[in-house]
Amino acid sequence: MKNLIIKNASQVVTCSGFAGKRGREMNDLHVIEGGTVVVTDGRISHVLRAGEPLPVDEAGYTVIDATGKALLPGFVDPHTHFVFGGYREEEFSWRMRGDSYMEIMNRGGGIVNTTKATREASEDELFEVGRRRLDAMLRLGITTVEGKSGYGLDRDTEMKQLRVMRRLNEAHPADIVSTFMGAHATPAEWKGREDAFIDFNIREMFPLVAKEGLAEFADIFCEKDVFTIEQSRRYLQAAREQGFKLKIHADEIVQFGGAELAGELHCASADHLLQASDAGIRAMADAGVVATLLPLTAFSLRETFARGREMIDAGCMVALATDLNPGSSFSASVPLLFALACIYMKLSPEEAVTAFTINSAAAIDRADRIGSIDVGKQGDLVLLQFPSYKFLPYHVGMNIVDTVIKQGEVVVKNGETKS
Amino acid sequence: MKNLIIKNASQVVTCSGFAGKRGREMNDLHVIEGGTVVVTDGRISHVLRAGEPLPVDEAGYTVIDATGKALLPGFVDPHTHFVFGGYREEEFSWRMRGDSYMEIMNRGGGIVNTTKATREASEDELFEVGRRRLDAMLRLGITTVEGKSGYGLDRDTEMKQLRVMRRLNEAHPADIVSTFMGAHATPAEWKGREDAFIDFNIREMFPLVAKEGLAEFADIFCEKDVFTIEQSRRYLQAAREQGFKLKIHADEIVQFGGAELAGELHCASADHLLQASDAGIRAMADAGVVATLLPLTAFSLRETFARGREMIDAGCMVALATDLNPGSSFSASVPLLFALACIYMKLSPEEAVTAFTINSAAAIDRADRIGSIDVGKQGDLVLLQFPSYKFLPYHVGMNIVDTVIKQGEVVVKNGETKS
Ligand SMILES: [Zn+2]
Ligand SMILES: [Zn+2]
Repeated sequence: MKNLIIKNASQVVTCSGFAGKRGREMNDLHVIEGGTVVVTDGRISHVLRAGEPLPVDEAGYTVIDATGKALLPGFVDPHTHFVFGGYREEEFSWRMRGDSYMEIMNRGGGIVNTTKATREASEDELFEVGRRRLDAMLRLGITTVEGKSGYGLDRDTEMKQLRVMRRLNEAHPADIVSTFMGAHATPAEWKGREDAFIDFNIREMFPLVAKEGLAEFADIFCEKDVFTIEQSRRYLQAAREQGFKLKIHADEIVQFGGAELAGELHCASADHLLQASDAGIRAMADAGVVATLLPLTAFSLRETFARGREMIDAGCMVALATDLNPGSSFSASVPLLFALACIYMKLSPEEAVTAFTINSAAAIDRADRIGSIDVGKQGDLVLLQFPSYKFLPYHVGMNIVDTVIKQGEVVVKNGETKS
Repeated sequence: MKNLIIKNASQVVTCSGFAGKRGREMNDLHVIEGGTVVVTDGRISHVLRAGEPLPVDEAGYTVIDATGKALLPGFVDPHTHFVFGGYREEEFSWRMRGDSYMEIMNRGGGIVNTTKATREASEDELFEVGRRRLDAMLRLGITTVEGKSGYGLDRDTEMKQLRVMRRLNEAHPADIVSTFMGAHATPAEWKGREDAFIDFNIREMFPLVAKEGLAEFADIFCEKDVFTIEQSRRYLQAAREQGFKLKIHADEIVQFGGAELAGELHCASADHLLQASDAGIRAMADAGVVATLLPLTAFSLRETFARGREMIDAGCMVALATDLNPGSSFSASVPLLFALACIYMKLSPEEAVTAFTINSAAAIDRADRIGSIDVGKQGDLVLLQFPSYKFLPYHVGMNIVDTVIKQGEVVVKNGETKS
């Protein structure tokens, strides 16, 4: 049954009002105290204030009493690399000793390690580990997940990663939004021929991925010693011509002009942005590029956090994402994400909630379907164990999700996955 | 049935060898690859290497196949304030704006808020919230929890908190070790008469608590503007005379000489220690005082972490604890604790595991009974979803506990509490 009534929530945190919020708008969550939400046939059909009569017959609905609990839109994670083979727990200790990401990459560790394991893994093996990771994310309240290829860096493995995501989208309660990221790194066989590798992606991979409809977005790691601004521009322009929406890994390690390029190309989002310049921030704000911040990665790498506070104050649309991946951020910890955003990036709890619901939906061009509790949207909801969204950063690092609802169906109850 | 066999664990991380480890000893976890552990009648009866024949008949035992999973001693949390009334999620935003703990206390927020709510709560209400918090801790692998009074600051409420802990110890799978902390703060009715309040604790509370056997430890908040070194010495010496073991909240906010006092009095542990001096660190190392570090609190308060690396290098016995409380650290996040210890305090994964098992057992004088996988100890065990303890810090902020075993009984399976 996809008909559900959630009654008398201490708060219905609608996150309503805009298809992605900029600057000060991010503080307005449009909370309804004592509200009730009705999901009919998987979609939100009614959002009621306290005392409003139920316009449907309870008999055809599952009814949840949400007294003492806050109800939010399902969380949207707009940046992950969750389909990968192998693990890098040993390398983690190198990083703790102080070795940089670039040092580890140059030493043959880093992404090379994961690329090898992902190439060697069967499609079914990747499906199985991907499924388990989605289960964990679902228990944390994440109902939509963006996932990137980019651990194959050759035709067959990139296609394998994307096929795994398509299968998971069908098999798992969570929705998957797929991004082709052939330009995640230059693999050994193309080293020194970066321009030719970009050409390979443009000429061979884009048409193949587009033909099979395996990805909606294209993404590139624009960074010193990875891909230049010029290579990134060429890759992204070609991607747009072939029908992809655009994302960019920008200004993570050095100030490189990635945010400016994102503004120039009107990318859907620019991600990381730890080193984004003032001009880059302005460019994103002006062009309506979602600034997607990944504090779990900065935390794991002991880096300085992106200037989220200043980006919001400059009028940017800021989103949050986990960046789940086996290297720089083996984490999908939603509670830690909220704690870092509020304690270390100085977002208010309201801004952080906006950033991980309606704004993260905007980062994957889904703000018309998910990310807020509005009539007509998908019935993707999260019920907390506590009466206020303010417990999300306050109960530091603790999963306070009570119930997760996907298209009107209860898929997690008290931490137990029902998939 | 309290008879259990856990077979073929990828690692049996015994944490064996010492009743509390100092300095370099902390790196030696005594790991058995492919090992098997037998628990008979609630106690560990056999620890077997790969290939050793089972010396018992499987028929009388529950058998768990631990292939691909690491087995550790149950985690021991040696510093919490988990029994309290009310929440302080609003105050959390004040702190995020930059207000200090002392500013909030002086404004009538802070502990005063919790004291009021704890006084007003019934014993059953406190029991119920305490039970839920212990459930959450158990799911994170914590099988023994130290808990402090100190939110009553009057006779009846202090006794109520301690009685709740006694009842929880009986009713809940987790073991509770109780600490009387009448000197947590000076309540309004004693303000300006701190010495008289210390006298009240010594003359009235200690005998009452001792007579009913409600606490094993006594603790005091030794800190500028809270209780002086002299008051702390007097309180702790009197506590020892009346049969209590000693703990001290030391050098959290300013360098105050608390670590030195802990050494002088040979306290079981000194806790917080963010500002501990070099002399204080030496005093703790010389006297065998466990240095109990609370990085979740430092993280939540945006403070600099205690010098864990230097304490270990100086030969201290370092333990970790959550400090779960409604103000400065509303967290029992074991995964975040490991991440902070390893990424930010530069402990190795091995040192962090030692610090939260055998050394935290030493901090509550239980190293003879729990904290390691040794024959004769309680069958308190944690099985991870992954093959190595190195995933504890690596899977940043994520609960990777698969199964929790308390005295040979499975009490948590795949995140589901069976209590
Ligand atoms: Zn990424
Ligand atoms: Zn404390």
